[in-house]
Amino acid sequence: MPWQSPAETITVAVDANGADLGPAEVAAGAALAAERGVRVLLFGPAAEIGPMPDGVEVVDAPVSIAKAADPAAAARSTRDASIVRAAAAVASGEADALVAGGSTGTALAAGLFNIKRARGIHRPALALPLPIPGQPVTLLDVGANVEVRPEHLVQFAYMGAALSQVVLGVERPRVALLSNGEEPTRGTAEVVEAHARLATAAGLNFVGNVEGHRLLDGTADVVVADGFSGNVALKVLEGTSQRTLKEIKAIAMRSLRAKAGGFLLRPSLYGFRAEIDPELQGGAYLLGLRRLGVVPHGRFTRDGIARAILLAARGTEGDVVGKTRDALEAAGALRSAPVAAGPPDPPPAAEPAGSVPGSP
Amino acid sequence: MPWQSPAETITVAVDANGADLGPAEVAAGAALAAERGVRVLLFGPAAEIGPMPDGVEVVDAPVSIAKAADPAAAARSTRDASIVRAAAAVASGEADALVAGGSTGTALAAGLFNIKRARGIHRPALALPLPIPGQPVTLLDVGANVEVRPEHLVQFAYMGAALSQVVLGVERPRVALLSNGEEPTRGTAEVVEAHARLATAAGLNFVGNVEGHRLLDGTADVVVADGFSGNVALKVLEGTSQRTLKEIKAIAMRSLRAKAGGFLLRPSLYGFRAEIDPELQGGAYLLGLRRLGVVPHGRFTRDGIARAILLAARGTEGDVVGKTRDALEAAGALRSAPVAAGPPDPPPAAEPAGSVPGSP
Repeated sequence: MPWQSPAETITVAVDANGADLGPAEVAAGAALAAERGVRVLLFGPAAEIGPMPDGVEVVDAPVSIAKAADPAAAARSTRDASIVRAAAAVASGEADALVAGGSTGTALAAGLFNIKRARGIHRPALALPLPIPGQPVTLLDVGANVEVRPEHLVQFAYMGAALSQVVLGVERPRVALLSNGEEPTRGTAEVVEAHARLATAAGLNFVGNVEGHRLLDGTADVVVADGFSGNVALKVLEGTSQRTLKEIKAIAMRSLRAKAGGFLLRPSLYGFRAEIDPELQGGAYLLGLRRLGVVPHGRFTRDGIARAILLAARGTEGDVVGKTRDALEAAGALRSAPVAAGPPDPPPAAEPAGSVPGSP
Repeated sequence: MPWQSPAETITVAVDANGADLGPAEVAAGAALAAERGVRVLLFGPAAEIGPMPDGVEVVDAPVSIAKAADPAAAARSTRDASIVRAAAAVASGEADALVAGGSTGTALAAGLFNIKRARGIHRPALALPLPIPGQPVTLLDVGANVEVRPEHLVQFAYMGAALSQVVLGVERPRVALLSNGEEPTRGTAEVVEAHARLATAAGLNFVGNVEGHRLLDGTADVVVADGFSGNVALKVLEGTSQRTLKEIKAIAMRSLRAKAGGFLLRPSLYGFRAEIDPELQGGAYLLGLRRLGVVPHGRFTRDGIARAILLAARGTEGDVVGKTRDALEAAGALRSAPVAAGPPDPPPAAEPAGSVPGSP
């Protein structure tokens, strides 16, 4: 990833719990990010973390809710959990962005109840840059909202476009709507209505509906979906590519000739695996809050954690949150003030999403 | 496919239009099926078909709606279209099952308006045995109903189980519900309610929710979804496996070593491609009508067409329709008579699904 150190110092609050490799690995990732000029507030068990270089401040927060039976509920009730304290530091302005690995459900709940929704946003969403060769495609929502209204999908479109532009460097992101057919009349009532609104939406490069098989073919840079079918799409994609690679591996063991072929092909396949490595994109992005959140996958190594921190800093410096708000405002797509609009929206589903990017 | 000729003569009405390779290829497939003891009524342009062997009766029906702008509407209004005449022959009892290649939307509309829904069925559904190595997994609905109620999903479960048992030979099919999490509380309101009903449903081997990445791992033989997310899942699966194979092909051209590896591996990969050949499973199945329908993909050759005809005959002989009704009746999951239940259900979406299995 090309990386320029931020012009001003950006502080990222990082939860050291929740990573499969433990708090020390997260701390090592934080140290790598600090070397690149980002300041890190690291919340976790100080005893397991040890001394840190300049730029990383450890806040002793030994309570972990990463293994709670209902992590989203735990995030709401456990004030001293490391992830809650990290989110609270962002809410108070001590830090600019949140990085919390492991469960997106926990991170979403902690973010929602501490950092809170940005003004005018109906619902936060989880966005994932899909790990595909070449330019990433950002899919959202991948699990925060199983049921959506058309105005939510419209907001997701702007949120995803701002992320794609600021964090992934796509100049004028092409935004599409996931559906079961390309025609504007295809899809659920919500999708059809969202299509109609997006087709005339200001300041958005809307390219229409895409079907599932076009998710990966470069038709769009941002693909918008409700959290149910977005989650299904993401999981099917991950499952299918894993299954296909596994089958090919098995095939390369079937005969002497195939074994020789597999042996010769292996080094090039390693390169391919690196290209589709989920660590490259930093993880899932928590959009629609007052500050940016990034959720690296639980299995990430220090490199992936460092990348998540750097991307959170880049998103902050490039002002994903402000750009989203400005674009929504210009398009008249911000949620009206509650007084004018009747009852406020309900919070998102109680259990938003489990481990979103690729459960075992 | 192991195949026993049916004990009694079964007649399948086949639409010769709608296949990419033309009516003569469909006729060749019909001839192959007739050799295996199935009687075929072939509706299409007699002039393009020529003489047929015993067992295939050509009915001159030159009008094709395969290229109509709105094929579903055309299926409703064009009484002399070959697909409509084939469906009408099934409705009148001249034939036992329908095979119509090309667009599932056209076939669904022609079937629905002629063969009609089976008694007690809310909605017909499109089921597709996914072309994966080993035992196929049947996914339904893959596009007939973009919006569903819980009772629809429950019926799809029984319909898919009967298909899996009778046509694919799975003894006690494990049935799962597609969702964004494994817990019974995950998913849309409809999925959560359907889960609760299926968990106590009589005569069904319900194994709970599956997430998208488990579609292919042998957890379930039948996976039930609404037609929107089912269609997304199917298309993402197809797109991802095609993309992965394409990437690996490109990788095998990157260096001399990789080229040699690809050359050695190629024969084994051909075997893999044959195993995942969609022609093996006959195509998509039209369930919930008074008779069985099969929709081979437009690009199928004579072998795939013959297989679709043979599988339609097998499903008729094994009585998929009757077994579905009996299981639904025993479970109390049949739709009540319209008089008792209030207004009848609306017909499915006007444009059910385009070409479902793998558009380009």
